[in-house]
Amino acid sequence: MSEKEVVLLDFWPSPFGMRLRIALAEKGIDYEYKEEDLWNKSPLLLKSNPVHKKIPVLIHKGKPVCESLIALQYVEEVWPHKSPLLPSDPYARARARFWADYIDKKLYDLGRRTWATKGEEQEAAKKEFLDSLKLLEAELGDKPYFGGDKFGFVDAVLIPYYSWFYTYETCGNFSIEADCPKLIFWAKRCLEKESVKKSLPPQEKVYGFVLELKKRLGLL
Amino acid sequence: MSEKEVVLLDFWPSPFGMRLRIALAEKGIDYEYKEEDLWNKSPLLLKSNPVHKKIPVLIHKGKPVCESLIALQYVEEVWPHKSPLLPSDPYARARARFWADYIDKKLYDLGRRTWATKGEEQEAAKKEFLDSLKLLEAELGDKPYFGGDKFGFVDAVLIPYYSWFYTYETCGNFSIEADCPKLIFWAKRCLEKESVKKSLPPQEKVYGFVLELKKRLGLL
Repeated sequence: MSEKEVVLLDFWPSPFGMRLRIALAEKGIDYEYKEEDLWNKSPLLLKSNPVHKKIPVLIHKGKPVCESLIALQYVEEVWPHKSPLLPSDPYARARARFWADYIDKKLYDLGRRTWATKGEEQEAAKKEFLDSLKLLEAELGDKPYFGGDKFGFVDAVLIPYYSWFYTYETCGNFSIEADCPKLIFWAKRCLEKESVKKSLPPQEKVYGFVLELKKRLGLL
Repeated sequence: MSEKEVVLLDFWPSPFGMRLRIALAEKGIDYEYKEEDLWNKSPLLLKSNPVHKKIPVLIHKGKPVCESLIALQYVEEVWPHKSPLLPSDPYARARARFWADYIDKKLYDLGRRTWATKGEEQEAAKKEFLDSLKLLEAELGDKPYFGGDKFGFVDAVLIPYYSWFYTYETCGNFSIEADCPKLIFWAKRCLEKESVKKSLPPQEKVYGFVLELKKRLGLL
């Protein structure tokens, strides 16, 4: 058993895990970070998330919360006062949840297809990936953050993908900044925050991980 | 413009739409129901949900809320007092959200594959569909409802599929009750509630719709 009240089962390149690292940092919650080996999952992970067997899992006082968006809302509900991530207005909350859900439905899978596929499939993935980012950029508009003046829920959900951008661009041979300059500007603004900076791995490290992964999967 | 404050863009056989019908009925909210033709979507639907172009859309005071689980939480947050669907404890809320998310990730797609595919693919879908229902039955346990003694969030999310059970069973030639008797018992308990009874179409009507759909899709 951990001596800390909060434990995070995570895997360093996971954009889903990064969200929770950011939220916990934003709220100043002390926790134990436990790195998982996804090719040899720990008994604790399998016990904590028997349904999906996936990281991240947030364990609070021994009770596991699975699925990153749900764990993010749990963190928000247990520690609502410091650095609130969701607005109080129900319509603004629904809007934040809508875009977080959109990011979940689109970016991970499309991003993966920009580096794990070739030819026509890769070209289609790049186009759809950029279209999704452009839609997100339009939603951001001229606001500093997705929710307005303060870093919030959608920012925490989206910014982890920034650590994968170099991988997508290098493997897919395209430029995100050329199509979405404002989104890159937003990403750099987010990275000025200590909570974000310390939660995201360097882009080159993610790229190195993906090259290894491609070897392992026989994609090189 | 509608004269009512709440408008629901829906399509009668949609399990996603039924959730909102149930929640609005539970909370006693008067609304205008607008049936959509999914093969000829209305300008109002396309304007209200430009990203996914899907029903249901809940429009409240002219503002659209899309994606059924998000709209369900919106209804809960705007009208929290009558028939609360989510518990107040953050861990119990996370658990309800987890199972609602599980239902969304599994049942619609698997259910569709029990009637839209054949042979090995259909057999695999039937097995996975029943495995998912068994997992849900285990989560229900001996409680009257998923959240405990009162009808709540997970019940509202899952019960709409009951109106599709006859279709799955007849097209797939299998029995849900044989494998999940407690879940059927739960479903019948839910159907005793006026809010549920009036929100779900008869199973035979859904089956007739699916037979027509199979013709349209060239699956007969």
